[in-house]
Amino acid sequence: MITGHQLIAGREAPCDHAPYHAVNPTTNESLEPAFCEATTAQADEALRAADGAFDALRSAAPEQRAQFLETLADEILALGDTLLERAHAETALPMARLTGERGRAINQCKMFATLIREGSWADATIDRALPDRQPLPKPDVRKVLLPIGPVVVFGASNFPFAIGVIGTDTVCALAAGCPVVVKAHPAHPGTCELLARAVFSALRKTGLPDACFSMLHGRGTEIGIELVKHPLTQAVAFTGSLRGGRALMDVAAARPQPIPFYGEMGSINPVFVLPGALKENAAKVAEAYVTSVTMGVGQFCTNPAIVLGLQSPELSQFVEKAGEFAQKVAPQSMLHRGICESYDAGTAVWATINGLQLAGQSSAEPNHEATQAACRIYTTTLDVLESHEELRREVFGPCSIVTQCPTQEEMLNFARGLEGQLTAAVHGTPDDLREHAALIRVLERKVGRIIFNGFGTGIEPCPSMHHGGPYPAASHSYFTSIGTDSIYRFVRPVCYQGFPDDCLPEALQNANPTQALRYVDGSYTREGF
Amino acid sequence: MITGHQLIAGREAPCDHAPYHAVNPTTNESLEPAFCEATTAQADEALRAADGAFDALRSAAPEQRAQFLETLADEILALGDTLLERAHAETALPMARLTGERGRAINQCKMFATLIREGSWADATIDRALPDRQPLPKPDVRKVLLPIGPVVVFGASNFPFAIGVIGTDTVCALAAGCPVVVKAHPAHPGTCELLARAVFSALRKTGLPDACFSMLHGRGTEIGIELVKHPLTQAVAFTGSLRGGRALMDVAAARPQPIPFYGEMGSINPVFVLPGALKENAAKVAEAYVTSVTMGVGQFCTNPAIVLGLQSPELSQFVEKAGEFAQKVAPQSMLHRGICESYDAGTAVWATINGLQLAGQSSAEPNHEATQAACRIYTTTLDVLESHEELRREVFGPCSIVTQCPTQEEMLNFARGLEGQLTAAVHGTPDDLREHAALIRVLERKVGRIIFNGFGTGIEPCPSMHHGGPYPAASHSYFTSIGTDSIYRFVRPVCYQGFPDDCLPEALQNANPTQALRYVDGSYTREGF
Repeated sequence: MITGHQLIAGREAPCDHAPYHAVNPTTNESLEPAFCEATTAQADEALRAADGAFDALRSAAPEQRAQFLETLADEILALGDTLLERAHAETALPMARLTGERGRAINQCKMFATLIREGSWADATIDRALPDRQPLPKPDVRKVLLPIGPVVVFGASNFPFAIGVIGTDTVCALAAGCPVVVKAHPAHPGTCELLARAVFSALRKTGLPDACFSMLHGRGTEIGIELVKHPLTQAVAFTGSLRGGRALMDVAAARPQPIPFYGEMGSINPVFVLPGALKENAAKVAEAYVTSVTMGVGQFCTNPAIVLGLQSPELSQFVEKAGEFAQKVAPQSMLHRGICESYDAGTAVWATINGLQLAGQSSAEPNHEATQAACRIYTTTLDVLESHEELRREVFGPCSIVTQCPTQEEMLNFARGLEGQLTAAVHGTPDDLREHAALIRVLERKVGRIIFNGFGTGIEPCPSMHHGGPYPAASHSYFTSIGTDSIYRFVRPVCYQGFPDDCLPEALQNANPTQALRYVDGSYTREGF
Repeated sequence: MITGHQLIAGREAPCDHAPYHAVNPTTNESLEPAFCEATTAQADEALRAADGAFDALRSAAPEQRAQFLETLADEILALGDTLLERAHAETALPMARLTGERGRAINQCKMFATLIREGSWADATIDRALPDRQPLPKPDVRKVLLPIGPVVVFGASNFPFAIGVIGTDTVCALAAGCPVVVKAHPAHPGTCELLARAVFSALRKTGLPDACFSMLHGRGTEIGIELVKHPLTQAVAFTGSLRGGRALMDVAAARPQPIPFYGEMGSINPVFVLPGALKENAAKVAEAYVTSVTMGVGQFCTNPAIVLGLQSPELSQFVEKAGEFAQKVAPQSMLHRGICESYDAGTAVWATINGLQLAGQSSAEPNHEATQAACRIYTTTLDVLESHEELRREVFGPCSIVTQCPTQEEMLNFARGLEGQLTAAVHGTPDDLREHAALIRVLERKVGRIIFNGFGTGIEPCPSMHHGGPYPAASHSYFTSIGTDSIYRFVRPVCYQGFPDDCLPEALQNANPTQALRYVDGSYTREGF
């Protein structure tokens, strides 16, 4: 069932050189079949096909695209255990987690189907003519969001479904009417192939061209760079490391025609534990914290890597409790050997830092053969954190540092010096929050999402979700990579002036056949005229 | 009244080195006083002040910022003839045009005051908690657009008011709550100073800090680069040439923290004249065309630089008529000597191209001492246009090329090869438009605004306006630099999860004290709950 082929606009291109295999991180076994690097010619073929299919896809009625998305949800589900088992073998993520993530991915398909069927997302705006206005007549001007063209998607290693081949990026681009070329993740290429075949199946069942979609394999950086450089590529979505993301972002910016690059590049997600939280339930917060740190073996971009609190007996108790909870965490297999080695190397560097103490770690030894990582909770003081840049860089995995701050003002100053973050969390009583309003004002400048009495892990894909933030959390802070608003990355406004009604896109026609909410002459309305 | 000082957060820094003067393009006379290059230290001072004022400005009630904008409109008007006369002396733009443009600038201030007072622009979105949802409870998530921080603005030479110191960029950034540092245009620094003083006056009258605004002078590229590079700068707005814009865009992208660069960098604005338009009223369209080409001495970024039509006796008649109208156009003074020399050099290069004919030019000789440019209308065939890249590059000024296409398919192919454009215009009957639907489909991929039976010159700053387009027309095709939506360049979503109601921004509080339209649990409503 899994062939290792490049899947280019429905055409199958067998693997014929430089083969590589996925590896089961738990058993260290190589998984069949072989995959291989896509070629420059194949990248070109995929993007030409995407460009050629663009007119058909964008002119398809929203209803047809909605049906495609719903069919895709069915096709993903129809893969059944074949999908879950392959994903489990390639990522070591537990079956329960994968089942849950599949549910999220399917819901995302349905969410975008609902969004485009309803239509208001496209921001249709109309200012009617005033031919008698003085000193100059006012023309009839209307605008609506239209898809931008072929989009290249790089999925994440840590969410093979929800941020993968059929994740938000692909699904919202296709919903908007943009053909998609996916660069398959080399750590789970078999999962990618199964999902790509679900996309083709859904395209065919709903009468859309195969050329709306392609998927190319590769482990090196070359094919990704080719895809970003290709003149027909009109936008890129990426989820992954800052290093990889920034490199591709620079390629996108240096093109003769620079294109938008939407990277979600991780974060340290600071957590501020205010006095009330420590007084009222230090143990409970500590438990929730360790649960968040170890969720998905710490392989979440919203993992809370740094906790800050006021130096106090209560904070010491929090550290002690967190250390105890860490001991109880069983070591688990990470996504692949490379991540696990980086995790061990990163925490090994930390271990050499004077003033950083291990508060607690998994009492069971991690099995290195099974790519396992131990949970490790550290504690230090603010001056140590501030004087060691490596402590403020994301180490991907189940580790975190509780930092004791001598004063509130110094904690606030640390917040002022933060780089852009996906999330920050604040724990405390409502009165704590009111007293620390200044902290929230600072975080509003640094963070995409601020969570009160919770953690950033666990993202609700909904209209109000923002998964992004100032650089380096994301490459452009206006846009989100999760939730319905992620569709805005792949559209742009087109304005029509003085057009006959029947030559306008449906969303802009007088009668409003779409019944979407529009902004007409300064008022929001679903009425036609 | 005009001092030549750098105006940094209300502090006046006299000119003390490397002075330069504005020049009256009509008389070639140097105008007092002297201006000089701002220093790196002054750029740093301006941005530190802006950053320091950010909290005060963003936490000011929208009502206070609206009053500031309305007061600014009054202050601009109160400058009276002093402003108009200085602008006329520095730009040679006629008094009537400047009076009209001042009206547009004032209306823009009022438009943004209305926008932020009403509040719906901020896209408040709320998804309430579902604590009993299975398998996981749904958290309370809310988001709203907040200002991003200090913004650097580079105004245009051709719109000293509407795209200048107090143009859309500055006004919508301040409306959003972002402090602004303006790089004054070296061709009209006195006009800039008068306008900057109006900004300070309005800030003071409405109780906002002087530090919300600074203006620095300079003719070289250094100070602009310093401003874009400064770590406290969070976004840049630029209107000007592609060369200058791309250079700054590259600087913004190469920063350690890349920031959004919003450049509007010009366009050739193709015009497609379909058979019906030529049959019905070739002479009328030709007259409107030459009027558009010569509007503002051709110094509009929406100037129609290339016309395309089917080779036919009617098109030949159109060319002849356009040539005749061109002859009647009196040469006029351009904005400055540099632009005029580029115009003459650009058209001189064209004159050497085999197969390009002059259809007509101003019969009166331009007075070079008065920086005058003649209107020049050319004609050629599609093969010549396609084989000479220099004919497809913007030559800023009152020139344009009517191109004869052998077939409709070749005309369409030319459209397919276009770079991104601010505008395209199509002239014809409604039936022409229906028959050429394929052309509109192509233009939807290339253009920000498509005009039927009109020209791109003359922009209506309204909610449905889009002034932008794919690169190189603009640096990011999602955003507009004119109209109410231009405010979206200077904000980003911030998401609040699980917050107590009174700790949320007003726009997100349960009772909806702002009465703005919000998207709550999947429905648009102004109601609180």
